[in-house]
Amino acid sequence: MRIVVDAMGGDHAPANVVAGVVDAVKQFPVTITLVGVEDRVRAELHKFSYPKDRIEVHHASEVVDMDDSPMDVIRKKKDCSIVVGVNLLKQPGYDAFVSAGNTGAVVAASTFYLKMIDGVDRPGIGLVIPQVTGTAFLIDVGANAEPKPEHLYQYGHMARAYMQGVMGVESPRVGLVNIGQEEGKGSSFDKQAYQLLQEKVPGFIGNLEPNHIFAGKADCIVCTGFVGNVIIKLAEGLMESTGIVLKREIKKNPFSILGALLMMGALKGVKKYGDYSEYGGAPLLGVNGIVMKSHGRSSPKAIKNAIRATIRQVEYKIIDKMRTAVVS
Amino acid sequence: MRIVVDAMGGDHAPANVVAGVVDAVKQFPVTITLVGVEDRVRAELHKFSYPKDRIEVHHASEVVDMDDSPMDVIRKKKDCSIVVGVNLLKQPGYDAFVSAGNTGAVVAASTFYLKMIDGVDRPGIGLVIPQVTGTAFLIDVGANAEPKPEHLYQYGHMARAYMQGVMGVESPRVGLVNIGQEEGKGSSFDKQAYQLLQEKVPGFIGNLEPNHIFAGKADCIVCTGFVGNVIIKLAEGLMESTGIVLKREIKKNPFSILGALLMMGALKGVKKYGDYSEYGGAPLLGVNGIVMKSHGRSSPKAIKNAIRATIRQVEYKIIDKMRTAVVS
Repeated sequence: MRIVVDAMGGDHAPANVVAGVVDAVKQFPVTITLVGVEDRVRAELHKFSYPKDRIEVHHASEVVDMDDSPMDVIRKKKDCSIVVGVNLLKQPGYDAFVSAGNTGAVVAASTFYLKMIDGVDRPGIGLVIPQVTGTAFLIDVGANAEPKPEHLYQYGHMARAYMQGVMGVESPRVGLVNIGQEEGKGSSFDKQAYQLLQEKVPGFIGNLEPNHIFAGKADCIVCTGFVGNVIIKLAEGLMESTGIVLKREIKKNPFSILGALLMMGALKGVKKYGDYSEYGGAPLLGVNGIVMKSHGRSSPKAIKNAIRATIRQVEYKIIDKMRTAVVS
Repeated sequence: MRIVVDAMGGDHAPANVVAGVVDAVKQFPVTITLVGVEDRVRAELHKFSYPKDRIEVHHASEVVDMDDSPMDVIRKKKDCSIVVGVNLLKQPGYDAFVSAGNTGAVVAASTFYLKMIDGVDRPGIGLVIPQVTGTAFLIDVGANAEPKPEHLYQYGHMARAYMQGVMGVESPRVGLVNIGQEEGKGSSFDKQAYQLLQEKVPGFIGNLEPNHIFAGKADCIVCTGFVGNVIIKLAEGLMESTGIVLKREIKKNPFSILGALLMMGALKGVKKYGDYSEYGGAPLLGVNGIVMKSHGRSSPKAIKNAIRATIRQVEYKIIDKMRTAVVS
């Protein structure tokens, strides 16, 4: 298996990407093609020892910035690591693409060069999120801010295929994010999405109120890209703010400081529970190819875990499974 | 000052409402008119001693259920505590209305009987939310799931008036919830709302990403009712899930149990930081009258704090201030 990795994507590229890739080839049965500015990538690689035949470098002269417009990248930066990396997937022998780079550019390049699978109109980005027990798959978290109702049932199909194949959930339950639980709640958009999910997607359990998104009530959670993006960024920000407040409260009292030291293990457990890097990247679903988006602030561990989740998708032949799920 | 309180609203009505009202008249210079089924309200009142001239009971024969449709309440339950209570505000001598009942019914009755103030097209429900330091005012959290862009700038004006008058923030900063920080991010709706806020609302600081909603970057945070409702319910659910995970982690290790006991004060501090009942209710802004919505699960303390926040609005003559703010 050969996975293409964008060496230039993310806030700490190529250093973090290369470090994560080196860890990945040592732990998993995979060969990596690093795409990026060759001398910069090789300079990072030289810092490590690793099986040389398992990492190759593919030169791409241009670099995408986090604030480049996606359309500009496709029109003007055709030799950037994202465009070159995505296009490698059209050649035999390359199984998947992983990038921690500009999300809009990854979505646009994947959609433009790989095209959509039959029965899917728009790509969606999914994310495995923690639950009180286990995990759930939230889609879309930002590829498609203004979807049509039919995009949402297509996300439902793809999310089920992902949870079945990659996460091993036999009969995933699918919920629709809405501000009321009863059928008929919300706008006409919400009602149409509800109807379509109910007609077409097995395991649909109805509306899911936002206070239940981390409660373990559904395995697949479907929403618009705007709402999904609000959910993941809000959760991130709230955990950060709570951490700040907790530290401040602890410092008020010497017993609390001692208490915090004694329960350090438990506090780390909670932090780990909310740590995306544990779960790897966010798959871009709906295009003709396995594309994984990793967080822009990805650590080497997050890159390694994104590669591990990508390997599972390749092994499971996720694209074939999604094609069948969407058409049936 | 005389405040009308819906005795029949909320999951534990009339018991919690009456208990909160009794505490309020003991602590604040206010007279309360409890609206509800008279014998049930008096049965609760008999459990307490309180200054008799400061609480009166106004009979209303019907009770609104949490799942009654708002339109049905207005059409068919004209003698319910919500409709009767709202209508009392049209008589001289009644300064405000507080209800922990069916949110949709409170919004519909207030809009229908009190009408909108000039320059405001639709009501919005605001909520004071905790920040790392201080508080912010989030509007709308669920009155208006599908607003037009112009409703959002009107919310901005009213939120500023509220933060200035009730919370004492001299020059409130106003942010618009969006999934990107730069101007021009999001859908055409988001762009139009941005433009209008920039043109019309003093203190507008631009888009606010969801991870900054609890970070203290803005004093007034404007969004659609759908997004606002997602924000508050998600935050509530996430704090609950984190609490469950923390308890589970603590139990894994006896040192953690001891640690948790020692830092109980700090943990309670964090819980208090996320506790809505500390801040009182959620004002319904935009109608010709001071209407305060308290959480359906309100404790007596939450009812008392909602009355305290309502008193501040009456003292500050919030409706006049909002009229001036919106028109200017």
